[in-house]
Amino acid sequence: MDKKHITRIDAVRERILEAGVDNFLISSAANRYYLSGFELHDPQCNESSGYLFITKDNFYLLTDPRFEEAARRILSEDNFFIYRQNKYDKIINFLKKIGVKRFGFESCYMPYDFYEQLRKHFDLVPLKNVVEQIRMIKDKDEIKALQRSCELNHKVFEQIESILTPGVSEEEIAWEIEKLFRTGGATGLSFSTIVAVGPNAALPHAIPGKTKIVKNCPVLIDMGGRVDDYCSDQTRTFWVGDSPGKEFLKTRELVKKAQEKAIKEINPGLPITEAYFIAKSYFQEYGVDKYFTHGLGHGIGLETHEPPAIGPRAKGVFEPGMVVTIEPGLYYPHWGGVRWEYMILITDNGAKIL
Amino acid sequence: MDKKHITRIDAVRERILEAGVDNFLISSAANRYYLSGFELHDPQCNESSGYLFITKDNFYLLTDPRFEEAARRILSEDNFFIYRQNKYDKIINFLKKIGVKRFGFESCYMPYDFYEQLRKHFDLVPLKNVVEQIRMIKDKDEIKALQRSCELNHKVFEQIESILTPGVSEEEIAWEIEKLFRTGGATGLSFSTIVAVGPNAALPHAIPGKTKIVKNCPVLIDMGGRVDDYCSDQTRTFWVGDSPGKEFLKTRELVKKAQEKAIKEINPGLPITEAYFIAKSYFQEYGVDKYFTHGLGHGIGLETHEPPAIGPRAKGVFEPGMVVTIEPGLYYPHWGGVRWEYMILITDNGAKIL
Repeated sequence: MDKKHITRIDAVRERILEAGVDNFLISSAANRYYLSGFELHDPQCNESSGYLFITKDNFYLLTDPRFEEAARRILSEDNFFIYRQNKYDKIINFLKKIGVKRFGFESCYMPYDFYEQLRKHFDLVPLKNVVEQIRMIKDKDEIKALQRSCELNHKVFEQIESILTPGVSEEEIAWEIEKLFRTGGATGLSFSTIVAVGPNAALPHAIPGKTKIVKNCPVLIDMGGRVDDYCSDQTRTFWVGDSPGKEFLKTRELVKKAQEKAIKEINPGLPITEAYFIAKSYFQEYGVDKYFTHGLGHGIGLETHEPPAIGPRAKGVFEPGMVVTIEPGLYYPHWGGVRWEYMILITDNGAKIL
Repeated sequence: MDKKHITRIDAVRERILEAGVDNFLISSAANRYYLSGFELHDPQCNESSGYLFITKDNFYLLTDPRFEEAARRILSEDNFFIYRQNKYDKIINFLKKIGVKRFGFESCYMPYDFYEQLRKHFDLVPLKNVVEQIRMIKDKDEIKALQRSCELNHKVFEQIESILTPGVSEEEIAWEIEKLFRTGGATGLSFSTIVAVGPNAALPHAIPGKTKIVKNCPVLIDMGGRVDDYCSDQTRTFWVGDSPGKEFLKTRELVKKAQEKAIKEINPGLPITEAYFIAKSYFQEYGVDKYFTHGLGHGIGLETHEPPAIGPRAKGVFEPGMVVTIEPGLYYPHWGGVRWEYMILITDNGAKIL
């Protein structure tokens, strides 16, 4: 393990001590990877590649035989435990063997079944956002990776605009985007690309389908790739054709202005909710706030969606080192919608668009 | 919703009635899609696109505003509920409003946090594998989709062999594979492709990296695409060069023979564990069983890994309409390993390789 992982695990230890526990079971894939370098991804959502168990003066990776050799390559023999069949029983026995009686767990990831097994043997303390709070503030290397990742995103947008022509389908565009990300150096997409033509643009999470661009229609593209493990996420809404609808132009102006206003006000110390309400109130002024149906943005890093969520109930304030998206949108089922999204870095005295 | 969804929801109702409950909250993405056609994927593992709530004579999709328009396109207004901020509270209020007091939930998916909120208001019954048991037996259309999906997998293997030459890296091969799947009609991969060169082939879940093929080395490829929503999953282990190592040849022979023996014996009524032990005992005869470190295979369908898991603790017997993988493997950290994987359909009187 790198020195950075040791430092990060120490930071976790400090935080759980404040919460009154010495031990902590990590089950989130991104948290596990952030703290140990072991496997950023699980094979599928309901199947873990392994857990990290942090004690006062040690840590263990608990994983299955498929990952034994991968564990061996980054950890010493004493720091990992391989469970075979009957995973939960094996983990319980291992934890008992190392003398554990009480530990914290990640309450928003822990499935009921696993919890029910564990609680029969241990004193369990639900903890929330412990690692995520640390991950919210990106270090220099993480910021560099996010910058590289976002640079590629800009480049792909430059390249893709020329293929947005009548007759091309959403799924064809999505595939072109994926190829541009991959050949540009991304190891994969950070989320399924959204390409929404015409009225489909009213679906904030549209799945690209067979709908084709026609002359004079909006095309909303929300896309991201993963570069050096870090995600990018940007949205643009294009008009294909030479006579953009009045509604489209007006909506795009409002959305971009709301975004600009929010970004201008963001600086360290500003309550996170405020950013949301700046955009919301601006839309209110024009009587369109009810078409702004989602949050203003979210943290981004090893995962596309990370804390903080920038919405009406967000807690805390912006801090230097945070990287978040700012993505207001307005949606109208009869013709489509507009979303515009930048990634910004909170600096010591403001915010910088990446 | 299609007629098939109604029929599937009815099948779920029958099963939960046996378990003594009238209502059921579905949180698995694949189960939700199987029963309603709404969103096969969640945006990310810790973020749901929505839940399905089945009552004695109705059903509801509970989702957030990002998916409102998508819900409206497949369901009538009465059948979906949009939660905004404070998701858990909103869901609780909605369920109270429709008169729910007691319901089953998917205990292996339900996160502790959500459970803790719900149990304050409702009588909750943990249920396991209700929908998965139904999904295990594929209907005609599902079998056809799986066949098309597996056909493409075969084709990609035919196409990829020629590019396995010294100097090409694992990640380059993985990308070529992805392109072949996508241009061949897959909407995406069904899981991250495994390309493992030389000793990396000893990592059953290797992540493709910068390691390049050299003359005379093994290359293990485990790959799958998604066609018409259904996954494929096949592994082959190639030798690049004209002098395959003796260990490799011997290992490949053992692995393929173990696979052949298991498939030959599989037929309706055979206990699922038996298939595992056929392969395991065969390896035992040759003193190599300790290098067979994982299960023999798994069900496959809307997800790559579905029940049944074919291992020493599997329950139940093979039944017509099941589609499973059979993938024995032997792994040796000093030189690599061999895995060979087919997808098979259980027929009325045996098993057919897809």
